[in-house]
Amino acid sequence: MIGGSLALALKAAGFASRVLGYDRDPGALAAGLEAGVIDSACEDLDAALAADIVVIAVPNVAAAALLEELLARTAHGHEGPVLTDVASVKGNLAAAAARGGPAPRFVPGHPIAGSERSGVGAANGALFQQHRVILTPLPEQDGDALALVRRLWESAGADVVCMGVAEHDAVLAATSHLPHVLAYCLVDDLAASPRREALFRFAAGGFRDFTRIASSDPVMWRDVALANRDALLEAVDEFSARLAALREAIASGDGVRLEATFSAAKTARDAFAEQQASAGREARRRPF
Amino acid sequence: MIGGSLALALKAAGFASRVLGYDRDPGALAAGLEAGVIDSACEDLDAALAADIVVIAVPNVAAAALLEELLARTAHGHEGPVLTDVASVKGNLAAAAARGGPAPRFVPGHPIAGSERSGVGAANGALFQQHRVILTPLPEQDGDALALVRRLWESAGADVVCMGVAEHDAVLAATSHLPHVLAYCLVDDLAASPRREALFRFAAGGFRDFTRIASSDPVMWRDVALANRDALLEAVDEFSARLAALREAIASGDGVRLEATFSAAKTARDAFAEQQASAGREARRRPF
Repeated sequence: MIGGSLALALKAAGFASRVLGYDRDPGALAAGLEAGVIDSACEDLDAALAADIVVIAVPNVAAAALLEELLARTAHGHEGPVLTDVASVKGNLAAAAARGGPAPRFVPGHPIAGSERSGVGAANGALFQQHRVILTPLPEQDGDALALVRRLWESAGADVVCMGVAEHDAVLAATSHLPHVLAYCLVDDLAASPRREALFRFAAGGFRDFTRIASSDPVMWRDVALANRDALLEAVDEFSARLAALREAIASGDGVRLEATFSAAKTARDAFAEQQASAGREARRRPF
Repeated sequence: MIGGSLALALKAAGFASRVLGYDRDPGALAAGLEAGVIDSACEDLDAALAADIVVIAVPNVAAAALLEELLARTAHGHEGPVLTDVASVKGNLAAAAARGGPAPRFVPGHPIAGSERSGVGAANGALFQQHRVILTPLPEQDGDALALVRRLWESAGADVVCMGVAEHDAVLAATSHLPHVLAYCLVDDLAASPRREALFRFAAGGFRDFTRIASSDPVMWRDVALANRDALLEAVDEFSARLAALREAIASGDGVRLEATFSAAKTARDAFAEQQASAGREARRRPF
């Protein structure tokens, strides 16, 4: 879904004259060709390395293994294409790149865009417009490689920002990885209940929105949880401590504390929604 | 918001020829009159009791106190209008009704509809169309009173179902009250972080949907948490135990377990979304 969406965006923008696809699943390649998402399918990794830029668009753990394989075939990135990726965790990719020495032409990247859908059939060339892409340059980063990957994402309509690997992984653990774990956990909890049928029958719009992310690809999110283990555990523990405090306020009937917590959250959430809305208005005013 | 939306729906459907409003806040009454949501404003509770049906549309703890006051003024419901309410918890209202003897003409009700907005300015006459309303009849329920409240909600376009008070409160604790607590807890957690600014800056669409319910009215949800304490604590504890198990799977790198949990949740969530979508298609086929 992410790789296909980027392919469509880059072709529409004229950034890429030709997009090659490589996938271990021949069915995905055939679907990509059929839909015009890719121009040709590569039979093997070496054929893919003929490109100017290789975008690794697979789940986080597989992405690290694939990066190591590509680095092994390109004299640790000193030959061949600029390499980048789109995975949600950057620490395990930075570590994979570091094994075997500096890899200055690998640029870790993460588009903050997506949906609960997956696969090339869900590709959407407008997916990245007005969305942020975070690049987490490595200490040894080659400036030209970084500039090329920045232009690639800007061609797709994205706003590119840079931050450190550890900062990225902590921020995403709190705002994305933890919410996914909570949503999966809640739905799994309800699905295991003896009241299951009534629960889903009477769940409403609030529940639908709250659990939308629990329809996301399980393999991708398994890999995120494994790859970002330490930051995610910290976020889970922080959240659990707050939930335990809130539980105590409920148990003791502490209405003042409950209202204070709910009000503080509402204020922060309303400010976030307003900030997102005004960023959207701002983006729509700019020429694309 | 709920009371005003019902007033608009009942006037549009011709169910109510005149809607009286009573509120301790004169500004809310003036806004309701100005917007045409109510036809006239009552100066006191006794004036409101001149109606055929009184709908108590205030947060849960206040609703119980108001119900007791109305029952005291109507010989415990043996005189005056049929009484009903719209609060999210039914146990504390059933208990309030029971104080002082049976109240056969009070019909506890709960429309499964709403939004994160509140106040008469957010009133929407179409709010209940194709939504469920749960009535939880009391053992002593008067049949005519129940039938009248059922017709009221059906006039507003809702599907009415009946269930027991305890079953209602357990189902809603799991599917609505717990998700609200989790969403408030997460946003409060992030808002208290030293990284606060970066967190909200890089949060994306998944976070926006997951936390939408944290923009709900804090007083209403304080009252829900207080009124449904036991069922909510049970739901929180059940969830916390599952989250602790998931935490252990993350900590030990148990990818098999993570994928199994995420897959089970995705399957259940996809089925729920499909069920909601087909219920929506079905409802649109029926003449309103």
